Amino acid sequence: MIYLDNSATTQPYPEVLASFQKAAEQYFANPSSIHSLGSEVERLLDRSRKQAASLLHVDTNEVIFTSGGTEGNNMAVKGVALQHQNRGKHLITTSIEHPSVMEAFRALESLGFEVTYIDVNRDGLVDAEAVMNAVRPDTILVSVMSVNNELGSIQPIKDIGRKLKAHPKIHFHVDHVQGLGKIDLPMNEWGIDLCTISGHKIHGVKGTGALLVRKHVSLFPMLHGGSQEAELRAGTENLPGTVAFVKALRILKEKEQQNRDHLWKLRARLREALRDRPYCVLNSPEDGVSHITNFSIPGLKPEVVIHALGQKEIYISTKSACSSKQPDVSAVLKACNFDYDRTTSALRVSFSSQNTEEDIKQFVDALDEAVHHLQAAMR
Amino acid sequence: MIYLDNSATTQPYPEVLASFQKAAEQYFANPSSIHSLGSEVERLLDRSRKQAASLLHVDTNEVIFTSGGTEGNNMAVKGVALQHQNRGKHLITTSIEHPSVMEAFRALESLGFEVTYIDVNRDGLVDAEAVMNAVRPDTILVSVMSVNNELGSIQPIKDIGRKLKAHPKIHFHVDHVQGLGKIDLPMNEWGIDLCTISGHKIHGVKGTGALLVRKHVSLFPMLHGGSQEAELRAGTENLPGTVAFVKALRILKEKEQQNRDHLWKLRARLREALRDRPYCVLNSPEDGVSHITNFSIPGLKPEVVIHALGQKEIYISTKSACSSKQPDVSAVLKACNFDYDRTTSALRVSFSSQNTEEDIKQFVDALDEAVHHLQAAMR
Ligand SMILES: Cc1ncc(COP(=O)(O)O)c(C=O)c1O
Ligand SMILES: Cc1ncc(COP(=O)(O)O)c(C=O)c1O
Repeated sequence: MIYLDNSATTQPYPEVLASFQKAAEQYFANPSSIHSLGSEVERLLDRSRKQAASLLHVDTNEVIFTSGGTEGNNMAVKGVALQHQNRGKHLITTSIEHPSVMEAFRALESLGFEVTYIDVNRDGLVDAEAVMNAVRPDTILVSVMSVNNELGSIQPIKDIGRKLKAHPKIHFHVDHVQGLGKIDLPMNEWGIDLCTISGHKIHGVKGTGALLVRKHVSLFPMLHGGSQEAELRAGTENLPGTVAFVKALRILKEKEQQNRDHLWKLRARLREALRDRPYCVLNSPEDGVSHITNFSIPGLKPEVVIHALGQKEIYISTKSACSSKQPDVSAVLKACNFDYDRTTSALRVSFSSQNTEEDIKQFVDALDEAVHHLQAAMR
Repeated sequence: MIYLDNSATTQPYPEVLASFQKAAEQYFANPSSIHSLGSEVERLLDRSRKQAASLLHVDTNEVIFTSGGTEGNNMAVKGVALQHQNRGKHLITTSIEHPSVMEAFRALESLGFEVTYIDVNRDGLVDAEAVMNAVRPDTILVSVMSVNNELGSIQPIKDIGRKLKAHPKIHFHVDHVQGLGKIDLPMNEWGIDLCTISGHKIHGVKGTGALLVRKHVSLFPMLHGGSQEAELRAGTENLPGTVAFVKALRILKEKEQQNRDHLWKLRARLREALRDRPYCVLNSPEDGVSHITNFSIPGLKPEVVIHALGQKEIYISTKSACSSKQPDVSAVLKACNFDYDRTTSALRVSFSSQNTEEDIKQFVDALDEAVHHLQAAMR
């Protein structure tokens, strides 16, 4: 099997699953219970939070564990909007955010908020100046993803964040689900107030993640109830999930530089191979992230290509998994102004550091075969 | 170890953890991915949903998997309120709901909704008539828990639900987190529109649960994004968690009658023993649920008793785990009009079907010893 759909989800590391298992067996008590079993679990949770904070370069009480990226994004976007609406009801985001950000904004529009969606250029990039030009006196939130999940474009977060420092009342949220481990995101230096990350994209278990919330930020919680997670996210804590998530973070950080170098090599290799193929056009920008490569094979339906590759146990995807059940056009590629042929024939290869150069060779060979076969059938 | 804090959380069954492990290893793909790995996971998810639905006597598409009881309760309460606010902004609940319901209502008050909190009697029971008397033309939601988590009182859900059938525009939500497996709750027959359950209270894994949403009910989602979970709960599905949750449900249902009989026997035994102890008064009503027994030892701080028992590896709790970090008075007992001495000295024993009569004997012996020791020290 050659799995090249790591932006949709990753395979959990065996060590991560072992951590989950052990915690679920041995530390099952409720950390809110005041008996010693509960206190032990509470200490383990505190330790996990401390480790996560240190790996992510934030303070311990700035780590709010969630059930995943979608929850983190909703919590940030709606939480800021509902909490600070008396200060203003204008919000800014981009036209290529993940559905968990985009639809949160649409929901807020239905509740009376006004949203400006900043357009992107051909490379899927927003212009920091365009973001700043959209700022109004009643703007309370700017949300921009660090890395786009379909194209791999890397947004100018540093630039936007620094410019927003002149507007201390505007909250800056970054959906960093695809960027975690791949690019650095120094929250403090870059003026980021809220940052979403997700466990299952970094070989953790599903149902885990975190929203990093800077100390000065107050939010209207999505989940009210007990006082867990600094009263920002009620509910009995998923301790085994959290332990597994932090284990995945630790592995990520241990091999970070080495993995990054490896991914860049894979990317160069893949882009080179695809550029050599007359049947395909690259959609991902030259200076995108290392693990995502998007390309189109105009004239071929992507699901047919995926099916042909699947028969050789090679797995790639169309656009983002979260919307692949929708009809054909990629909204992200459309926002980048690609023509219809390209927006309806896009494929995405996404690496994990476990992929090899041999995987790429086999993928490209299989792609050649599939495309020639399919094109022959169409003539 | 004698674990008597099963209302706070339960130990996952080994079979449940094995299911989790297997699913996490073998079915790691994203069910939204259109390649065959993704489709396999999607089929497993469909199968799990179908099983859950059949075990819970609802339709397949009425099962919305969540991250737990707190999420289900927030989703139901806020989801109905936000979705149907143009029809009215009046909501009804009781004064002894779990914080995840209570605080959701408080949050809605801050957004301009009006909430009537129905009082309870000495047994922690609301009067169905009182609920009906609170109904107004602008009432859109009634939320009443089936079983109270501190006292074990069983609310007259059937009665309320049947009376509410005359008001088809009012949504009826039941927090069934403590009732699942212990008492029946035929949603259709009793006119229940939304029902919350949680995995970790039935020997499942943490971070799992479901909101049962009848077909005709529309909700404003808490988590917007992809179209997962009938567009009511976006986010990459926690497939291993769901598989484990459904496994726990299956075990629960297989042994349901046998376990219920066993729990009633344990309860009778415990109540008898406690009634014989002059130092203690029972708070749980005679006709409460089988697994929760609440009692006070006036004059002794509950945390001191818990600590003494903990040294013998016997684990019980004060009020609900979710609020045990708060100061002393139990809000639930206070709402039942118990005096200060009792509201500040309450202890809760909560069984799982794995507990034995021998556990109770050892617990009562240890309690005697602890109380005599502590009372002697106070003289
Ligand atoms: C950029 C981006 N944001 C958010 C999410 C949502 O994260 P999760 O799948 O953990 O809900 C994803 C992945 O689906 C993503 O790629
Ligand atoms: C009655 C009741 N409702 C809701 C909850 C919340 O469920 P969870 O812990 O899964 O968030 C609990 C348990 O804490 C409960 O006892």
